Amino acid sequence: MAFLLDNLKEGGTIAGVLAAKNIKILKTRNDSPYLDLLLTDGKTIVAGKFWDYQGDRPKGNILYVAATIGSYNGQFQLKINYLRPAKPEEYNPRDFLPAAPVPVADLWVRWDALVNQIASPDLKALLEYAKTKYRNSFENAPGAVFHHHAYLGGCLLHSIRVAEMAAVICDLELDPDLIIAGGLLHDIGKLVSYNWSEGVFSYTDEGQFLEHTTLGILTVRELLKEVHLDRLTTLKLLHIIASHHGREEWGAPVKPKLPEALVIHQCDMIDSQVDKLRGVQNNSQGSNWEYVQGMGFVYTGD
Amino acid sequence: MAFLLDNLKEGGTIAGVLAAKNIKILKTRNDSPYLDLLLTDGKTIVAGKFWDYQGDRPKGNILYVAATIGSYNGQFQLKINYLRPAKPEEYNPRDFLPAAPVPVADLWVRWDALVNQIASPDLKALLEYAKTKYRNSFENAPGAVFHHHAYLGGCLLHSIRVAEMAAVICDLELDPDLIIAGGLLHDIGKLVSYNWSEGVFSYTDEGQFLEHTTLGILTVRELLKEVHLDRLTTLKLLHIIASHHGREEWGAPVKPKLPEALVIHQCDMIDSQVDKLRGVQNNSQGSNWEYVQGMGFVYTGD
Amino acid sequence: MAFLLDNLKEGGTIAGVLAAKNIKILKTRNDSPYLDLLLTDGKTIVAGKFWDYQGDRPKGNILYVAATIGSYNGQFQLKINYLRPAKPEEYNPRDFLPAAPVPVADLWVRWDALVNQIASPDLKALLEYAKTKYRNSFENAPGAVFHHHAYLGGCLLHSIRVAEMAAVICDLELDPDLIIAGGLLHDIGKLVSYNWSEGVFSYTDEGQFLEHTTLGILTVRELLKEVHLDRLTTLKLLHIIASHHGREEWGAPVKPKLPEALVIHQCDMIDSQVDKLRGVQNNSQGSNWEYVQGMGFVYTGD
Amino acid sequence: MAFLLDNLKEGGTIAGVLAAKNIKILKTRNDSPYLDLLLTDGKTIVAGKFWDYQGDRPKGNILYVAATIGSYNGQFQLKINYLRPAKPEEYNPRDFLPAAPVPVADLWVRWDALVNQIASPDLKALLEYAKTKYRNSFENAPGAVFHHHAYLGGCLLHSIRVAEMAAVICDLELDPDLIIAGGLLHDIGKLVSYNWSEGVFSYTDEGQFLEHTTLGILTVRELLKEVHLDRLTTLKLLHIIASHHGREEWGAPVKPKLPEALVIHQCDMIDSQVDKLRGVQNNSQGSNWEYVQGMGFVYTGD
Amino acid sequence: MAFLLDNLKEGGTIAGVLAAKNIKILKTRNDSPYLDLLLTDGKTIVAGKFWDYQGDRPKGNILYVAATIGSYNGQFQLKINYLRPAKPEEYNPRDFLPAAPVPVADLWVRWDALVNQIASPDLKALLEYAKTKYRNSFENAPGAVFHHHAYLGGCLLHSIRVAEMAAVICDLELDPDLIIAGGLLHDIGKLVSYNWSEGVFSYTDEGQFLEHTTLGILTVRELLKEVHLDRLTTLKLLHIIASHHGREEWGAPVKPKLPEALVIHQCDMIDSQVDKLRGVQNNSQGSNWEYVQGMGFVYTGD
Amino acid sequence: MAFLLDNLKEGGTIAGVLAAKNIKILKTRNDSPYLDLLLTDGKTIVAGKFWDYQGDRPKGNILYVAATIGSYNGQFQLKINYLRPAKPEEYNPRDFLPAAPVPVADLWVRWDALVNQIASPDLKALLEYAKTKYRNSFENAPGAVFHHHAYLGGCLLHSIRVAEMAAVICDLELDPDLIIAGGLLHDIGKLVSYNWSEGVFSYTDEGQFLEHTTLGILTVRELLKEVHLDRLTTLKLLHIIASHHGREEWGAPVKPKLPEALVIHQCDMIDSQVDKLRGVQNNSQGSNWEYVQGMGFVYTGD
Repeated sequence: MAFLLDNLKEGGTIAGVLAAKNIKILKTRNDSPYLDLLLTDGKTIVAGKFWDYQGDRPKGNILYVAATIGSYNGQFQLKINYLRPAKPEEYNPRDFLPAAPVPVADLWVRWDALVNQIASPDLKALLEYAKTKYRNSFENAPGAVFHHHAYLGGCLLHSIRVAEMAAVICDLELDPDLIIAGGLLHDIGKLVSYNWSEGVFSYTDEGQFLEHTTLGILTVRELLKEVHLDRLTTLKLLHIIASHHGREEWGAPVKPKLPEALVIHQCDMIDSQVDKLRGVQNNSQGSNWEYVQGMGFVYTGD
Repeated sequence: MAFLLDNLKEGGTIAGVLAAKNIKILKTRNDSPYLDLLLTDGKTIVAGKFWDYQGDRPKGNILYVAATIGSYNGQFQLKINYLRPAKPEEYNPRDFLPAAPVPVADLWVRWDALVNQIASPDLKALLEYAKTKYRNSFENAPGAVFHHHAYLGGCLLHSIRVAEMAAVICDLELDPDLIIAGGLLHDIGKLVSYNWSEGVFSYTDEGQFLEHTTLGILTVRELLKEVHLDRLTTLKLLHIIASHHGREEWGAPVKPKLPEALVIHQCDMIDSQVDKLRGVQNNSQGSNWEYVQGMGFVYTGD
Repeated sequence: MAFLLDNLKEGGTIAGVLAAKNIKILKTRNDSPYLDLLLTDGKTIVAGKFWDYQGDRPKGNILYVAATIGSYNGQFQLKINYLRPAKPEEYNPRDFLPAAPVPVADLWVRWDALVNQIASPDLKALLEYAKTKYRNSFENAPGAVFHHHAYLGGCLLHSIRVAEMAAVICDLELDPDLIIAGGLLHDIGKLVSYNWSEGVFSYTDEGQFLEHTTLGILTVRELLKEVHLDRLTTLKLLHIIASHHGREEWGAPVKPKLPEALVIHQCDMIDSQVDKLRGVQNNSQGSNWEYVQGMGFVYTGD
Repeated sequence: MAFLLDNLKEGGTIAGVLAAKNIKILKTRNDSPYLDLLLTDGKTIVAGKFWDYQGDRPKGNILYVAATIGSYNGQFQLKINYLRPAKPEEYNPRDFLPAAPVPVADLWVRWDALVNQIASPDLKALLEYAKTKYRNSFENAPGAVFHHHAYLGGCLLHSIRVAEMAAVICDLELDPDLIIAGGLLHDIGKLVSYNWSEGVFSYTDEGQFLEHTTLGILTVRELLKEVHLDRLTTLKLLHIIASHHGREEWGAPVKPKLPEALVIHQCDMIDSQVDKLRGVQNNSQGSNWEYVQGMGFVYTGD
Repeated sequence: MAFLLDNLKEGGTIAGVLAAKNIKILKTRNDSPYLDLLLTDGKTIVAGKFWDYQGDRPKGNILYVAATIGSYNGQFQLKINYLRPAKPEEYNPRDFLPAAPVPVADLWVRWDALVNQIASPDLKALLEYAKTKYRNSFENAPGAVFHHHAYLGGCLLHSIRVAEMAAVICDLELDPDLIIAGGLLHDIGKLVSYNWSEGVFSYTDEGQFLEHTTLGILTVRELLKEVHLDRLTTLKLLHIIASHHGREEWGAPVKPKLPEALVIHQCDMIDSQVDKLRGVQNNSQGSNWEYVQGMGFVYTGD
Repeated sequence: MAFLLDNLKEGGTIAGVLAAKNIKILKTRNDSPYLDLLLTDGKTIVAGKFWDYQGDRPKGNILYVAATIGSYNGQFQLKINYLRPAKPEEYNPRDFLPAAPVPVADLWVRWDALVNQIASPDLKALLEYAKTKYRNSFENAPGAVFHHHAYLGGCLLHSIRVAEMAAVICDLELDPDLIIAGGLLHDIGKLVSYNWSEGVFSYTDEGQFLEHTTLGILTVRELLKEVHLDRLTTLKLLHIIASHHGREEWGAPVKPKLPEALVIHQCDMIDSQVDKLRGVQNNSQGSNWEYVQGMGFVYTGD
């Protein structure tokens, strides 16, 4: 696939749709306004300047841009000559966002395989309804904005991995139905917490005001208006979502009070931390040790 | 008002309805089962023993008891001869629970006065609907099981005080509508978290599994199915409930992100802590300093 | 009001008094010393360089400067030709510092109104003596160097707000005299902790070595050599100052042990945090969410 | 199996071997010395008193006791007439300790199955040598003195479960050899930290002075004098042991720096916490919620 | 020295002055009031009951008591027949408090030796004035109510030890004058924080409201009204007192900012913790390991 | 001593051996690879670029470099023309590393003086063996990579200071042999944790995977294969190493359980923190207060 910012050459020009971040209207020392922003085609990021910019902050993040290619401090920089919000028919926001490492169709196969292990018809119906209703969101929402699974469908891939892991360790006399349903739904609030419609991953107002744990509980409660589930199973399932961060200081309104909730919390930790560490290892350039925020030094050798 | 356990005398007998706590079936050293429990008439607490007890654990906490009055270790003790679950028509569970220090009618007057300060018709309608729908629960639910406002209507009195306090400090350019609504509703989840129908205050399964913060958000979301409120005000109101504990380690899934949420959090702290400290001061017997769990020594002198 | 750094033009010259920060003597790669500093007229900040500087570090922060206006990296930069400490008659250090958002005369009216609500003649006399003795310091000292109320008189405005807030919530059976006196005096140590005589706000040695809580206690103890106050009220007032940060880990040598101390602590939290959040909201440029050190993301939308 | 303290009757006598705890020589108010201790046959615990005791503190914890059966405060109490350290041929210390819930032979089958999944001949040899050398210790050492797996072979059962769990989640591109070896050996230091030779579980001096994490590293280092393992694999294996508590504040001298170490840490958490919670659920008497030190309330209903 | 409670015999009587703790007026089950308290002669502690007590809570803690010696639950118990506050001429409160393990005269010799090492005449004068003014308090005040140096003169002994230790490690280019003065005065606030005039150690109101760190700073500030000390040395000395607890969460209003303050903090830790641990070792009865609040298990073997 | 990077002049050239850090192969905007690194002669640090670099990452950190001296952004920059790993005979890695402030011969005199104070022949033999076996490492290993004693022999100097300090405060009835041996050996794991053979101080794989506390225990355990020491003294000595960081959250697998371990922990704190603070004071340029990571502001005036 070819990208708009491939093969830039100083002095050349480009024109097309790009996603923008950090858009600011600043002033030069002669008090003349200019637009300052970062632009990406989903692969390369370059800085852009629109000198003597007279307009308001452009609406949205996806812009049609025409620019001359210059450089500053040894980096390419776009000198923008023309800019407008892109029209919906001109782009697909997914084009500016990283794809999952596995095809989404495979993910649904794994989802279905997990759901088929559930014995309770009610829980099965709940998961099928969740898939139907939120299919599109599941295929887009990332696992996090930065730290782990930060790609399209990342939340879905992570949820499936957590459920798969938790399901295979059920010999501890746990309830497998609750484990699988809890694993698949524990992060469903992220479908509402994150935004991917503007070519960059960001938090929605809902995500900022309420966080994905609370939003997940509200989402499942809504699903349960359409699907029957007995009172105690409902409480246990909502509790797994409420407690999946494990400790109050990590954002859980309650600590796990069920063995199934303990297991989902720990499997969530395994998958998110191993993914974060793998990401560091994959980006490491020859050094054996790299410092990771919140983890300290980790091994990036063989 | 006369209570069943007033004027006990060793060797006498009593018969009537009492609330029980800590009910256990134990065995004597001769392997004979007996029932061990605490009994209260809402004012006095005495230990009870039912020797050679052959039945199962009695259903519920409110029991009709016939007993001889004995003593053990300088304390009265009931030697129970007969015991059965009390019939609903024989008692009112409120009779076994401490009453609020102000008449409930006065509380509703204060509630209405606050609601009348709200300019937004939608928020006003929401609060009126909350009052109508949960009137009975508000008149019963305590502010906490032990620490503060642990009496019938305690949650209501506390919510009103928080709203009143927050309302009078509105010169900080805050939104008074949001402040009052947030103050009155921040603890509404306690109506579902606590149980008062068995003559003692205790946690419900809902309270244990989800805690009152999450339950409050779910409750308001349900109310909003019947009352209109714009998206942004809804998010802000739910955010005030979500953040009213102020910090993740104190059980808030999100920290306050609005000045109105900061104010409700701090007013909640003032009212609950001052009430706790006042309780210690009122029960203090002449000593100037008493140790309080979580607060250290506090002053109980004049 | 016109400022010296208004309307700078590359190639022009300026001469006059400016306040300096971050003064350092560095060396060029040819080992030639130069002076590197930031200069402000109380409104604009520019970098300055004095090449081939042969003198010692200039005394004080307020300097008479003659310079040519150049630029570096798209920012103005002063090429200094001449520099000496400004003479006292050439400037007023207040000119380089941000002013409070309300006239100081209005603040004293509010102070007096609060003092007039105090019933105890002794406490009243104490506050009047504090005003007389520290009038000038109160009109200058900021509430903090950076985070909140970082302007001339900021400490006074903050203290009044805390006292006003605390005074209106006195229906909790608190002692209003203690509340008002505690509110007005809780931060009096900041008059000694901060320095404003050099055109920038900074910590004094006293502030660094002892912090404003201890300094406030020492200050009130000195005031009480001239004004009578009974032993118990003295202890309670000093305790309110000692405990106003609320927790040991937040710098309080004792936790609040009086309801009045709890209230002053919480009102101090409300006013400082709401002021900090308001500051972020006022400086926000169109984005709905901004990250604040110590608070996380806060809402900066409408 | 019959136990010595089965079917006690007041006034009767017993004679035989019992394990003692909390042995103290105290004085009556008439200054006459007596021995005060708790005695168990591995099933029942009773208090014992040896009045007018003239000897020293008895050597060891396993005693031959002859006593009359009395009672105090509604509990049986042994009035001891004769007491001496039991002779080695009179008892097996295992008789006084709880047995694992699965036969030890089954555990070794599971151990062997795990070892057979290891590809590296060196790691395989290490585990076989560990089994040979520490077979007896593995069959006795508990997982902890109190909280979880507190029975004979508890450390072995726990280590196997952790390795089994970790092995089945290897699709995360982890090194299965390291995972299995790390899981089986992470707690090997407990073989040296705990004492089971006196009829009660207790800490050894080694366990108190160095803790099982350090002791585990020392133990594996000794094993590696007899079995070859390359330098990097050795470091990784020792690191898994060093970091298995996950965080410094939980007693790990280093945080996990390898994905395999993260997985062993989390699986260790799952198995120990689920076991603790299951223990509470199994001992619960009809109540739906029980308070657990370090976990808060947990669900003990169906 | 003979004590009043030596050689108690059931049925005998005693009469004399004793110190009382935990004085409460309770009611028997027949609603008859009685006085319940603990009594000590400075060596032995016994419970006392004054049945049918009609008076108010006795004034003070040191009481003249006439009683019959009974027993309860295997412990002696005084059945009090007569009780009044002791007259000042009847006792010395020191008689009821544990003595320091070294003669106080020796302590002053060590104090003087330290002061003679000080070069600065001003600091020397300050310490001599402190000795003169507070000699009596230094000879009585304990190092703490419970945990360490809980005996008459304990604060003095502890202060001397800290100064001696800190003085001998001065090869780190520290200021020895400041070190010695800081060591001797760091806990001077305890002279005001603790009460020893009632036969038991307890907190004063000053100690509760302000804690010994703040009280120490106030005390030295008062001493400095009579003795000259330059501004910077004054600030450094007060800073050593302010920071001697080392961290905010341990009650220090500022962290150490001088090397001399770091050294006093650490030497304070050494002396108080080693003293606490030694106390546990001395009271240990044959067991090798004992649990200490805040320290965990410590070694109490040889 | 003359250094290669003394007296640089723009346009000049240099050739010789330098130590390199932060070596990266990057790409220019024209996709042409270049080597980017920092180079030091042990005194000066300069950036270097090798444009159009076609090779692999150079082996090791010590490089023979030929370069033209240019400048960028007011700093010298080396434009490298030729580069290869230096040959062992061309340099001594110590030349690139800062030297200790005292001659190493003096350190061994102090070491011997301490060892001569030890009464136990076994402990004495252990320390002499440690000196013999690790003499070279002790003369090179730093106390830390950055924060304190970051120079050749820094670990040795620090260990001696800790032992000297601890030895002079032995009047607290401590065991002086254990104190001296513990002080000298507490950081012996740093000999294996740090690397100084590449002209920069860095962590070894051993240091990253196991940290110096665990490595110190392993090292002493190895030494004890050659030197006899009784079981209890061995445990106490290893415990001093295990607990010398004082608290789990500071990296100690066990808290101090012996008074000797408490003393070594606190003396370690004194020496490392005073050294860190002294380093800040020595590098301070005229300002009275500087901010130090982990300590806050410290005094850097006179």
